[in-house]
Amino acid sequence: MAIMSQDQPYWASVHAEIEVHLKRHILVKPPLSVFEPMHHFVFSALPSPAPALCVAACELVGGHRDQAIAAAAALHLMHAAAVIHEQLPSTDRPKTKPKPGPMAYSPGIELLTGDGIFAFGYELLAKSMDPAQNNSERVLRVIVEMTRAMGSQGMVDGQYHEILLLCKQSRYYNYVCDKKEGGFHACGAACGAILGGASEEEIEKLRRYGLCVGVMRAFSNGVEEGNEMETKEVVKELRSLALKELEFFHEGKAEAISSFLHVLSL
Amino acid sequence: MAIMSQDQPYWASVHAEIEVHLKRHILVKPPLSVFEPMHHFVFSALPSPAPALCVAACELVGGHRDQAIAAAAALHLMHAAAVIHEQLPSTDRPKTKPKPGPMAYSPGIELLTGDGIFAFGYELLAKSMDPAQNNSERVLRVIVEMTRAMGSQGMVDGQYHEILLLCKQSRYYNYVCDKKEGGFHACGAACGAILGGASEEEIEKLRRYGLCVGVMRAFSNGVEEGNEMETKEVVKELRSLALKELEFFHEGKAEAISSFLHVLSL
Repeated sequence: MAIMSQDQPYWASVHAEIEVHLKRHILVKPPLSVFEPMHHFVFSALPSPAPALCVAACELVGGHRDQAIAAAAALHLMHAAAVIHEQLPSTDRPKTKPKPGPMAYSPGIELLTGDGIFAFGYELLAKSMDPAQNNSERVLRVIVEMTRAMGSQGMVDGQYHEILLLCKQSRYYNYVCDKKEGGFHACGAACGAILGGASEEEIEKLRRYGLCVGVMRAFSNGVEEGNEMETKEVVKELRSLALKELEFFHEGKAEAISSFLHVLSL
Repeated sequence: MAIMSQDQPYWASVHAEIEVHLKRHILVKPPLSVFEPMHHFVFSALPSPAPALCVAACELVGGHRDQAIAAAAALHLMHAAAVIHEQLPSTDRPKTKPKPGPMAYSPGIELLTGDGIFAFGYELLAKSMDPAQNNSERVLRVIVEMTRAMGSQGMVDGQYHEILLLCKQSRYYNYVCDKKEGGFHACGAACGAILGGASEEEIEKLRRYGLCVGVMRAFSNGVEEGNEMETKEVVKELRSLALKELEFFHEGKAEAISSFLHVLSL
């Protein structure tokens, strides 16, 4: 988080707003056995750029930050829940990385907490319907976007292929990047655009922009020793594809969203 | 299912329609590794009465069956996904009942399949929005109902307390019945009422009716040897409470929904 705030003022400020929104909604209340771990996992999850990208896309197309904040918060919840389920001991995933810190909860609690957080993400989204804004059709469209990004053709598919990859039964690294980080960031950008009132053309441009950002991030996080040059080439190409999508928008307005092209470890 | 069809013509016919609806939407398509287990678990799950109760509530308040069929299908998906996650080996649940048949999938696949089915349930619901029916606000309200029934104050809470109960660390059997079967059936009836255009008073009456049906079912399924008399008393009391809720409605119309009072093992 320290690195994020220094290098990424836009991401850091939006993420702080998302946290405020989530803290208003996720109280530590009875049953504590259920809400305490939920609180813990939501607020200890390493932030993903996808929620802030959702807000940036909304603002880029002329929407107000408030219109996207519930969806951005829901994206953070989806991300946190997916990480919990990914790290459960029963996932057939070879145990390569030790978990940071002591495991505070049993796998049974972690499984249920993930289920609870997914459900709460959809609840937050559905409750963001506001008759004064007449936004219910947009909110429903965003729910469909999010279920697809998280479901059997999105995150679930990517997680399955990642297990095969880690078990050396697959070499589809690109496929995993597309489905996991790629699809999740594409969803974030598309949802923000929808909520900000974008045209179909703008939505699809921002979806492709998000896909590039997510895949770049996955590549630069997963770079293997000896592969640095190749990865740099891929990232360079993705960055130029991403910038092409932004050409459509007014240059002065695209500054915030283009900052996500620097959210990389490389 | 054979017993269900004979004794419960209403339940059986509605369940058959729900299956048709689900078969149209859940195809066995690529990636097969993800969709094949999804198909298997959705169509092999023991049917719960809650989805048909949703349709019955919709019809009771003057709605058409079509208005509730997507929500009923989503309820079946939620039920199937909850059962998968409940039976995962990492749930801290003491292994009392052997699983029926050989375990066909690894725990990792089952975990991901459950996640995929939950997401697909919300997708089906959100897609049931129909501008011609102008039903988007009702659909959003139903999504909130369902996330609450499945989430940290509903099913997740019940599953957590059920583990404590099975480990003899708790004696709150009633609490588990309320949160799991009770809350799920209450949600089914309330969702059907909302989609059928019920008044707030009708929604709450049908919610309480569904709660009674669910708790009766949990009690009669969980009856322990030596406890038959006590359970019979509880079930009798719940049935009379449930019938009281139905008095509000026109007698001739309440026949289908009252048939759920006989969906019991006792």
